[in-house]
Amino acid sequence: MMTNGIGNVLVGQSGGPTAVINASLAGVYEAARSLDAPRIYGMKYGIQGFLQGNLVELDKLLGDKLDVELMLRTPSSYLGSCRYKLPDPAQDEGPYRTLFALFERYDIRAVFYIGGNDSMDTIARLSAWGRATGSSIRFIGVPKTIDNDLMLTDHTPGYGSAAKYIAAIMKEVICDSSVYDLRSVTVAEIMGRHAGWLAGAACLACGPDCDGPDMILLPEVPFSPETFLRKVDALQRSKPNVIIAASEGVRTRDGVFLCDLVSGGGQLDAFGHKSMLSGTSRYLSDLIQSNLGCKSRAIELSTLQRCASHLASRTDIDEAYRVGAAAVEAARGGLTGRMVTLRRMSDVPYQCVTGTVEIEQVANLEKTVPADWIAADGTHVNAAFEQYARPLIQGELSPIFVNGTPRHIRL
Amino acid sequence: MMTNGIGNVLVGQSGGPTAVINASLAGVYEAARSLDAPRIYGMKYGIQGFLQGNLVELDKLLGDKLDVELMLRTPSSYLGSCRYKLPDPAQDEGPYRTLFALFERYDIRAVFYIGGNDSMDTIARLSAWGRATGSSIRFIGVPKTIDNDLMLTDHTPGYGSAAKYIAAIMKEVICDSSVYDLRSVTVAEIMGRHAGWLAGAACLACGPDCDGPDMILLPEVPFSPETFLRKVDALQRSKPNVIIAASEGVRTRDGVFLCDLVSGGGQLDAFGHKSMLSGTSRYLSDLIQSNLGCKSRAIELSTLQRCASHLASRTDIDEAYRVGAAAVEAARGGLTGRMVTLRRMSDVPYQCVTGTVEIEQVANLEKTVPADWIAADGTHVNAAFEQYARPLIQGELSPIFVNGTPRHIRL
Repeated sequence: MMTNGIGNVLVGQSGGPTAVINASLAGVYEAARSLDAPRIYGMKYGIQGFLQGNLVELDKLLGDKLDVELMLRTPSSYLGSCRYKLPDPAQDEGPYRTLFALFERYDIRAVFYIGGNDSMDTIARLSAWGRATGSSIRFIGVPKTIDNDLMLTDHTPGYGSAAKYIAAIMKEVICDSSVYDLRSVTVAEIMGRHAGWLAGAACLACGPDCDGPDMILLPEVPFSPETFLRKVDALQRSKPNVIIAASEGVRTRDGVFLCDLVSGGGQLDAFGHKSMLSGTSRYLSDLIQSNLGCKSRAIELSTLQRCASHLASRTDIDEAYRVGAAAVEAARGGLTGRMVTLRRMSDVPYQCVTGTVEIEQVANLEKTVPADWIAADGTHVNAAFEQYARPLIQGELSPIFVNGTPRHIRL
Repeated sequence: MMTNGIGNVLVGQSGGPTAVINASLAGVYEAARSLDAPRIYGMKYGIQGFLQGNLVELDKLLGDKLDVELMLRTPSSYLGSCRYKLPDPAQDEGPYRTLFALFERYDIRAVFYIGGNDSMDTIARLSAWGRATGSSIRFIGVPKTIDNDLMLTDHTPGYGSAAKYIAAIMKEVICDSSVYDLRSVTVAEIMGRHAGWLAGAACLACGPDCDGPDMILLPEVPFSPETFLRKVDALQRSKPNVIIAASEGVRTRDGVFLCDLVSGGGQLDAFGHKSMLSGTSRYLSDLIQSNLGCKSRAIELSTLQRCASHLASRTDIDEAYRVGAAAVEAARGGLTGRMVTLRRMSDVPYQCVTGTVEIEQVANLEKTVPADWIAADGTHVNAAFEQYARPLIQGELSPIFVNGTPRHIRL
């Protein structure tokens, strides 16, 4: 039965890593502690691991406040993750019965699931099942994804750090690529399956000391080889070293991913998504070399952009922590079947507060870059995009260096 | 004519970028200033640019001490670089006559060239020509290369920062790759054409919070697919997520680069080197997937490992600065045709001092990882390697963040 407190809580992490998914875990953990939750359990390897009875007692593991500081600086999922999709209960009630029996065994009163689109689907299904079976357990989704493609939130925790990494690395790549007085084209491949939020963040490299990328290719804009080559050729007439930031999700007019036009396409994950789209930069680089007869290099920013905690955004870490804590507060207030959101109150000064929305409104939908934030010719983002993204990469949280490398925490 | 001072000096940067080549430039610049050099010229785009009359006046460009602080934090070559090889003067005296006429025009008394093996060849040829023609101009080489393959120096500036980047990034990659409770193999491709110094640095990821890579493949050890697959298979029986650090220079017993076994081999640069060996990790990843039926991901650390100034080693920056300053001191002392070296005086505490060697002893030779620093089965480095490399990644120099990204200086 409910008391004034929150009761035992259970928290899990799901989906792909980010630099700040553990900051949300820290937020859930410390908020639950401050409400005197008797037990704070963590799912090991997400809902899939928990289904097999894998859980840990976070309140016993995290004794020292230093552990929380390390957690804020540790990328990926401290608790492990999964890409498990709950079945339609009309077809298979098994996992639901198992899960709710486990909730009962551990007297769980609130469940928090930190994840992206697919994880919000899990929370939606669990809360619907709970409602249908008269359970009083509260289910709250805590958003995270570097892809920034969740609806009804200004942005998602994880995006700011990925954007900061991309901006900082693009500056270094541009220094590196501009070193010779020779014609060259560098193509940096950036994550983002169906939305160009991450590729667009390459614009943040621009400043008094750096021109930023000369072109940014987004999944939102169909790719035309002719237009592309014409633009690269024109750019090279005014500067020898051309830099292109290309989303891994760039597609032709027919909807074919560029990376599928080179050998070694990706594999499907449990959600039917391509798990690795790598190849777009190689395709573009080959296209340039064979048509413009100019040296071209493909660089894949790869998984580093989602797990570079050493270069995380302080704003992002703070917000990730706050959405975790706000989830606990929402559950304490009796809410269920909701996702915590971030609502931007102002750009200057940047101010953002947490809110919640019905999770059904969020699950399985994707938010793309608005057309009016993309340059008219489709090869860059404009000032509106920068105004949106720039505040999200402000501030740093110094890594704790031990013996030459950043120290992390592990289970 | 020589006076008590050093006279006008000329400094250039050559070869591939590093995170600290500008720290050596700062060392040359500040040492020359402290000796009241009337003019401090910089070659624009190395000796090749200078041959075309491209130079800048550093003493006019770098007014504020903040400029030097930014230079210490700016990757790649502030002055631009080249990959130009001076011809054998017996066959073509032209470039020598042009260069020495330019030296005379600007009354240059000392020339400093910051670079790797090939750049030391340039200094060797210039000083030989100078000696043969009775010139009193002094030529000093300032070593830099992330490859760490120069002879007669304990290590080269640039290596420590690349090693620190590799160690830190491998820790983050391992966090990222171990997130699911699934069998997987991650292959991270690390630079190093003919020597395994960089790949070996992946061992520095190991510590209380990280097991480090499970295997390290070096160019020094011939690759056998059978032995490799057997080892990966054995590793997977004790842990689901296997991590491999592989040098881009790994070769078969017949001396064939693994990257040449996949499509899209590299291009030759002016020195006849492959300028991009990318493909080794893809080859290994494909080999694993097709033989062990297990998910495998290829990650290329790419150019980021040589230009990640945001994660540079303070030890490396300090030493790079000191070899630059020591070069000026060597020239002031009347030396020519020499390269500055680093001599390690002790491991605990780590102490290193500068020295000089005859440049002919260095040019065009390559230093590889000693056989007794490699594990007996050839798939890792041992404690002797770590003892050598660990001191080189100690310490940090905080980037100067402006508006969310590290600020650099540019010409």
